[in-house]
Amino acid sequence: MQYLDLGYSPTDNDLLTLYRLTPAEGKTLEEVAEALAGESSIGTWTDVSTMIPEVGENLKPHIYKIAEPYVWIAYPSQLFEPGSLPQILSSIAGNIYGMKAIDRLRLEDFRFPRVLTESFAGPALGRDGVREMLGVADRPLIGTIVKPKVGLSSEQFAEVLYEAMAGGCDLVKDDENLTDQGFNRFEKRLELSLKAAERAERETGERKGYMPNVTAPGDELLRRLELVKQAGSRYVMIDVVTTGFAGVQMLRNHTDGLAIHAHRAMYAAFSRVPDHGMSTLAFSKLTRFAGVDQLHVGTIVGKMEGDKDEILRMHQEMNNAVVEPGDRLLGQDWGTLKPVLSVASGGVHPFLIPAIMGHFGHEVAIMQGGGIHGHPDGSRAGARTARKVVDAVLKGESMESLAERDTDVGKAYKIWGHKSW
Amino acid sequence: MQYLDLGYSPTDNDLLTLYRLTPAEGKTLEEVAEALAGESSIGTWTDVSTMIPEVGENLKPHIYKIAEPYVWIAYPSQLFEPGSLPQILSSIAGNIYGMKAIDRLRLEDFRFPRVLTESFAGPALGRDGVREMLGVADRPLIGTIVKPKVGLSSEQFAEVLYEAMAGGCDLVKDDENLTDQGFNRFEKRLELSLKAAERAERETGERKGYMPNVTAPGDELLRRLELVKQAGSRYVMIDVVTTGFAGVQMLRNHTDGLAIHAHRAMYAAFSRVPDHGMSTLAFSKLTRFAGVDQLHVGTIVGKMEGDKDEILRMHQEMNNAVVEPGDRLLGQDWGTLKPVLSVASGGVHPFLIPAIMGHFGHEVAIMQGGGIHGHPDGSRAGARTARKVVDAVLKGESMESLAERDTDVGKAYKIWGHKSW
Repeated sequence: MQYLDLGYSPTDNDLLTLYRLTPAEGKTLEEVAEALAGESSIGTWTDVSTMIPEVGENLKPHIYKIAEPYVWIAYPSQLFEPGSLPQILSSIAGNIYGMKAIDRLRLEDFRFPRVLTESFAGPALGRDGVREMLGVADRPLIGTIVKPKVGLSSEQFAEVLYEAMAGGCDLVKDDENLTDQGFNRFEKRLELSLKAAERAERETGERKGYMPNVTAPGDELLRRLELVKQAGSRYVMIDVVTTGFAGVQMLRNHTDGLAIHAHRAMYAAFSRVPDHGMSTLAFSKLTRFAGVDQLHVGTIVGKMEGDKDEILRMHQEMNNAVVEPGDRLLGQDWGTLKPVLSVASGGVHPFLIPAIMGHFGHEVAIMQGGGIHGHPDGSRAGARTARKVVDAVLKGESMESLAERDTDVGKAYKIWGHKSW
Repeated sequence: MQYLDLGYSPTDNDLLTLYRLTPAEGKTLEEVAEALAGESSIGTWTDVSTMIPEVGENLKPHIYKIAEPYVWIAYPSQLFEPGSLPQILSSIAGNIYGMKAIDRLRLEDFRFPRVLTESFAGPALGRDGVREMLGVADRPLIGTIVKPKVGLSSEQFAEVLYEAMAGGCDLVKDDENLTDQGFNRFEKRLELSLKAAERAERETGERKGYMPNVTAPGDELLRRLELVKQAGSRYVMIDVVTTGFAGVQMLRNHTDGLAIHAHRAMYAAFSRVPDHGMSTLAFSKLTRFAGVDQLHVGTIVGKMEGDKDEILRMHQEMNNAVVEPGDRLLGQDWGTLKPVLSVASGGVHPFLIPAIMGHFGHEVAIMQGGGIHGHPDGSRAGARTARKVVDAVLKGESMESLAERDTDVGKAYKIWGHKSW
């Protein structure tokens, strides 16, 4: 079978992929691209008696462009199971990473054709639905992760949540490794946290979102989701990578109006090395198809890695209805799939907020853990500080001026005013 | 918080990890190990007002050994949710890959303490249960993947399956990217394949296993599993990485005596780069906890990558009740968890079988796709060839001698007798 077809024009029915491909020693890019195209679709390493002409005619992928070290492939959509991210990944991001003929391989980007895009429900609420639910229109959402990450009792946790919400946080989330441990059981935490959130709502007149971490094996994940629904929460959060897309898509099927906050712990295991694995951009696009409502996209300025251009491109892919193709970017027509709210989190402190808003505008949720609970006067003062900083940025006031006239901000400024990563 | 504690002796209650750690430029191994230990457990990047002494006392990890570029950490088991691979991964293989302070990070190995090991059911049948089910005791199991990978109709698929089983295959599996597509619907394939398998059983007097691929979003995965149970199959197969551990653990909860065959498409996205991600050894150990009955471990001699020593170590971890620690290896006491059958697959042809049996002994399932359907006389002759080769190896006969006296083997020998990867 011959897949190389540089004159081929992809059709509206093709799923497109862009790979960065480093052949094993002694192999050419063309021959390895051939092997990759076969292994990810209809081929194997030797001629087989069971191959029939129809398969080649109807299902053959086309390698339509090569510009070292990049390879562009168009796959007929019939190769893929509509609505199944696991099946699509097993094809275009599966066995191929392990081939001896390949030294390194990165899925840089992909584009789904309309027939596949429409097979995914996408976010139930999405960015705008989340804003409506919380009643916050024209500023970044402000949130926190209760710290320490794990170890507080359910009571202690709910108290920190209350302080943060009372001080001005819209959102409070469990951390990625807090689920249901002996020191802080899920059900107790859920109950106390929602009570504390209601108290903060009454006192502030604002709506608040607690995001309990339902990450667990599938049956338990669904059981916790039911608990969350019964308790009347607005949100769940989930670790999308360690849960896996079968679990995330199942969660999306059962949320009944709850918003899904997606934490991406472990993504960098496959995205960090620039010439291998899957780009963070490609990963992020998968989550919009999976139907999460909020996704961590990076901060540009915080403790976690992330290339500025790629993060801003992710922000586009999360927000726009149509993303045009570009240089080594395939773009995506998102059809009717709602936008996902970008979340900036990881090593954020109040004085990074101006830079984050500079990059994302107001269309972002800014989550600070240490940057709120590390305030010398405690979590409530930390949350007040965050809100004051956001207001000042929107009004164009400098941080120096704000720190001088406001005690909360001034105290935080002494610690982090000049802290960068 | 100070985690470095080189005098510390891990307790029976600790989860141990071994990381290969490459600090970002300008950072020392010690300071980055500190940041990693905190981020994967109770810490964050700044002091927080909400930290309480009990958390440090009870839940603090200990960095107990450093030998550049390796770091050994002992985590109190209380940090982890029993029975939840997603939660454990979110801790020891989560955010840490994305920290700016780290340039590269690989989870080389881990060891669960008894309290966590016992929280996982492990394989329902395991290696010995699978052998008993199929009535094959003293030789490698022989299997095939229907090829082309995708594109045959359900009818064509079932016919190839029949030919392979009639010729001597014990096992036939869907390929990793064949699930439920328009050209070959899952239900139809299941029905026809099981009928074809029964026919082969009647004719050969042997028991046969068809492994339908139930990889799908969670709800659909469970629906397919029910179809498989109702149809009376012995097996399911699943793409464990693209499904994710929440889905795999859920599948394990619902199998009711069916065996789970684990395909690992995509694992090399995080295991291929030697100083980043997660070792294939560590990944394999996760699958035994998750409770699969058979796992692809590599071939050493086929088309897929895999270091010989690591593959043999994986084979030990799949088979032994206790694996002792070694140099840069933590070992594992598997308690009552049953062994997993190792599967060698990927570019295997009949004349690689002697080498595979040399490495694994008879305790392996050898799966050939092209190596069976590529036989010039078709799939049945390919399957006969495989069984004849296995018998010859067990009797100590050379391939040259066998090829000379047997027509099936002779014809295959002309194509692949000298094919190596």
